[in-house]
Amino acid sequence: MKWLPGWIRSYKAASLPGDLTAGLIVTVMLIPQSLAYAMLAGLPPQAGLYASILPLIAYAALGSSMTLAVGPVAVLSLMTASALAPLAAPGSPEYAALAVQLALLSGVLLLVFSALRLGFIAQFLSQPVVAGFIAGSAILIVLSQLKHVVGSPATTALGLGTIAFLLAARIGLPGLAGKLAPMAAIVATTALTAALPLEVSVVGAVPRGLPDLALALPAPQALAALWLPALLLSLVGFVESVSVGRSLGAKRGERIAPDRELAGLGAANVAAAVSGGFPVTGGFARSVVNFAAGANTPLAGIVCAALMAGVLAGATGWFHSLPHAALAATIIVAVSSLIEWHVLRDIWRYDRGDALAFLATAAGVVVLGVEQGVIAGVALSLGLIVWRASRPHIALVGRVPGTEHFRNVERHEVQTLPGVLAVRVDESLFFGNAAAVRERIEQLAAAEPGLRRVLLILSAVNHIDATALGMLGELERELAARGAQLCLAEVKGPVMDRLMRTELGARIKERVFLSTHQGFQA
Amino acid sequence: MKWLPGWIRSYKAASLPGDLTAGLIVTVMLIPQSLAYAMLAGLPPQAGLYASILPLIAYAALGSSMTLAVGPVAVLSLMTASALAPLAAPGSPEYAALAVQLALLSGVLLLVFSALRLGFIAQFLSQPVVAGFIAGSAILIVLSQLKHVVGSPATTALGLGTIAFLLAARIGLPGLAGKLAPMAAIVATTALTAALPLEVSVVGAVPRGLPDLALALPAPQALAALWLPALLLSLVGFVESVSVGRSLGAKRGERIAPDRELAGLGAANVAAAVSGGFPVTGGFARSVVNFAAGANTPLAGIVCAALMAGVLAGATGWFHSLPHAALAATIIVAVSSLIEWHVLRDIWRYDRGDALAFLATAAGVVVLGVEQGVIAGVALSLGLIVWRASRPHIALVGRVPGTEHFRNVERHEVQTLPGVLAVRVDESLFFGNAAAVRERIEQLAAAEPGLRRVLLILSAVNHIDATALGMLGELERELAARGAQLCLAEVKGPVMDRLMRTELGARIKERVFLSTHQGFQA
Repeated sequence: MKWLPGWIRSYKAASLPGDLTAGLIVTVMLIPQSLAYAMLAGLPPQAGLYASILPLIAYAALGSSMTLAVGPVAVLSLMTASALAPLAAPGSPEYAALAVQLALLSGVLLLVFSALRLGFIAQFLSQPVVAGFIAGSAILIVLSQLKHVVGSPATTALGLGTIAFLLAARIGLPGLAGKLAPMAAIVATTALTAALPLEVSVVGAVPRGLPDLALALPAPQALAALWLPALLLSLVGFVESVSVGRSLGAKRGERIAPDRELAGLGAANVAAAVSGGFPVTGGFARSVVNFAAGANTPLAGIVCAALMAGVLAGATGWFHSLPHAALAATIIVAVSSLIEWHVLRDIWRYDRGDALAFLATAAGVVVLGVEQGVIAGVALSLGLIVWRASRPHIALVGRVPGTEHFRNVERHEVQTLPGVLAVRVDESLFFGNAAAVRERIEQLAAAEPGLRRVLLILSAVNHIDATALGMLGELERELAARGAQLCLAEVKGPVMDRLMRTELGARIKERVFLSTHQGFQA
Repeated sequence: MKWLPGWIRSYKAASLPGDLTAGLIVTVMLIPQSLAYAMLAGLPPQAGLYASILPLIAYAALGSSMTLAVGPVAVLSLMTASALAPLAAPGSPEYAALAVQLALLSGVLLLVFSALRLGFIAQFLSQPVVAGFIAGSAILIVLSQLKHVVGSPATTALGLGTIAFLLAARIGLPGLAGKLAPMAAIVATTALTAALPLEVSVVGAVPRGLPDLALALPAPQALAALWLPALLLSLVGFVESVSVGRSLGAKRGERIAPDRELAGLGAANVAAAVSGGFPVTGGFARSVVNFAAGANTPLAGIVCAALMAGVLAGATGWFHSLPHAALAATIIVAVSSLIEWHVLRDIWRYDRGDALAFLATAAGVVVLGVEQGVIAGVALSLGLIVWRASRPHIALVGRVPGTEHFRNVERHEVQTLPGVLAVRVDESLFFGNAAAVRERIEQLAAAEPGLRRVLLILSAVNHIDATALGMLGELERELAARGAQLCLAEVKGPVMDRLMRTELGARIKERVFLSTHQGFQA
């Protein structure tokens, strides 16, 4: 029994009612969403249903969150459509086959990341980049769905009417009941188009029965075209899942294990590929509902999968008269809440650079496309880190009278010694700021008559790279040529260990002080 | 007279002998090098001579180094060949026209950088990346020249003979005399091929007379193809120049002004374009010789330019029988000293990450090409910075008995309080390490029975970005749910100012302590 997941081995009967209820409620949300997101991804409706069975079971077996609801989500569906549109015609069998291969590649990548414990690479997607990416994607999704809600007078009436109903339900029914509004809208509009001869586009025949299981490996040229979209899609899906799982888990003191999440999501995507689906991950809205409806364990997901299988086995006929306009309306209302203006506002107030990363990613997604947008966002946020580190805060410090404390001469009344410069650099020294640090110290040194010593305080320096080491060596020589000594103080242990192995370290060994105070006294 | 450069206004007669001598000696080096580097760049020999007149005068007017010797250099010649090879046939008039446009673009970019004071972007080329780039380029250059030194028996004899002579001269004549060996080799081999009917490829007719001045703006498609090579070439040239200029200037207490260097090199490249040359910058070997031969001011460069103009006006016939094999031999010997194995060895000992950046850049240049190599190197070194910052050193600290000092519990005998965790993070908090910091603190918190307080010591934190701020907010809530408080200590001024504007700041305002000691006592 050791091969069974921990949650099954320790399953308590008391968890059952919550898991059953949550599974049922999530199914009611998932049916319209799975059909809608398949449409968004450019796939036939059954692909959405297929992606809502085996992936849920695979995640339940390997994932670490107790309440994450896995399946098709809006952003990955958009990324799927964006990756496949240049390769095949949406709706064609080739297109569906490529969607399967995209899910397979994404699943394999996630499993490899899990095995190599590479979960940390998801950290490179900063929160502003992810929020900006989702906001930009939401705008693209709304734009892509507008064609479905306007058209014939009947289509426009159904589409706009459904949007109005869903918005009213969201405002009027903030609890769980509001989450069932899309299902109600779909039942009502299906009944309407079945009863009246309306000129609207409908889903039509959906094949009945469970998906055939098959595993098709991608051809080399498909691999070449799909690896980058699969990678980005995996990272975005993983980051979304972990952030939802983590915030729900924190409310109950449950921990998310990133490497197990990678395995769970990887298995879910492989399962989606095997059963004719498309890329899946943990969805935000359904996971919140799953949690709120009382899910205690991944059994809720298994219940949901069983119910979805039941729908596929017996009830696909119900979807025949379901109008596309109603599906598009549910997508538009669902994604419009993904644009988090208040997050942008808070970020803007806190940090302009991060706000810029948000806006640039969102604009990049809308203008350049989803893949380019996320790449631009990551590049920008990495550039921002380096840019910040390249403009270090450098303070000339002096002693607070009567103490061993040293503070910025510009902010405090402190004592300095003539001919001695005590300089603190508040950043690790690396190629990006080595020249700036040198420039500043040279300026300070030129302005100090009778300079004898420059005491460099390294309390905030966690690393000195080879470029900065070279800079320090040249600075030391330059000062020596002027008759002044370069001394160091408060060098951290690991920095010191490295420094003492170098030629510079050997030269200034006698001039490295434990504390600024000792350096000042010497 | 105010428009004259400072060095002319304050020119002293005592500087004249040194400037004249240095100008003459550098000319003797520059003649063979200018012809050889033109060949390396895929251009006719006169292009090298043209690039050695006006650019020197333009740099003398605007640059800031007193001893930099500007003109064609090996690495930029390789970059020129690499940029133009896909666009036109080497040796064709279209190719020469594109070389002129590349120099123009590069010059304009450098002038724009100077005007916008963007010299700092050159900092993103770290020392290991530059050293690796030059090493990789040197390997490519040697490979590209091998075809000129092997061939007919006479070619092979001349080529290998010249290489052997130059290597012997380098070892036997380490001073200035050794620097004149290439000129001696060229005179000797030219005399030999002129006297004997050898079957070797020679330079042939070189047009006599000064270059026509013209300014051709690039066509839009040339602009599209050339902007990236021009940008990379400008950055590499600027970094090389500044590093040579700085290290020579430091020996005499002369300062290099990066923005004026950008202007000087920009003007030099525009001058190269106007006079039918190709991209130029400050060369390492010639600058060192210029300095050693006694150059005091850029007048040495003007002397050199005048002598080169004299050669073009009257002596191009001398080059007719100059064998290509001898030129290739001078290139091979010159660039083989650019591979700084001792630098790689030192970097390897000091920092494996930087050594990796060196090797990856060198390998990237050889395998992928010069542009891709330098881009890969920059991307790798930026990634390395972020990767380092993403694995922060996190120490659990305690009080050194009887003091107000706090140290790592693993390295020192210190006092801790039960139920209180004092944690110091030695890195700015940002998206790349937010999850790792949270994970570590959660682990420590889970291992501490009866936890009441987590005191986070931010003495080494220079910035907290939006992602890390969100992490701290969630961590605070999570600890509160477990009955523990998150407290902060030693928050730096600028970090504090930002933090107090946020919702988290308002929540923990009462729990931010000036010193770890105060936090410990509370």
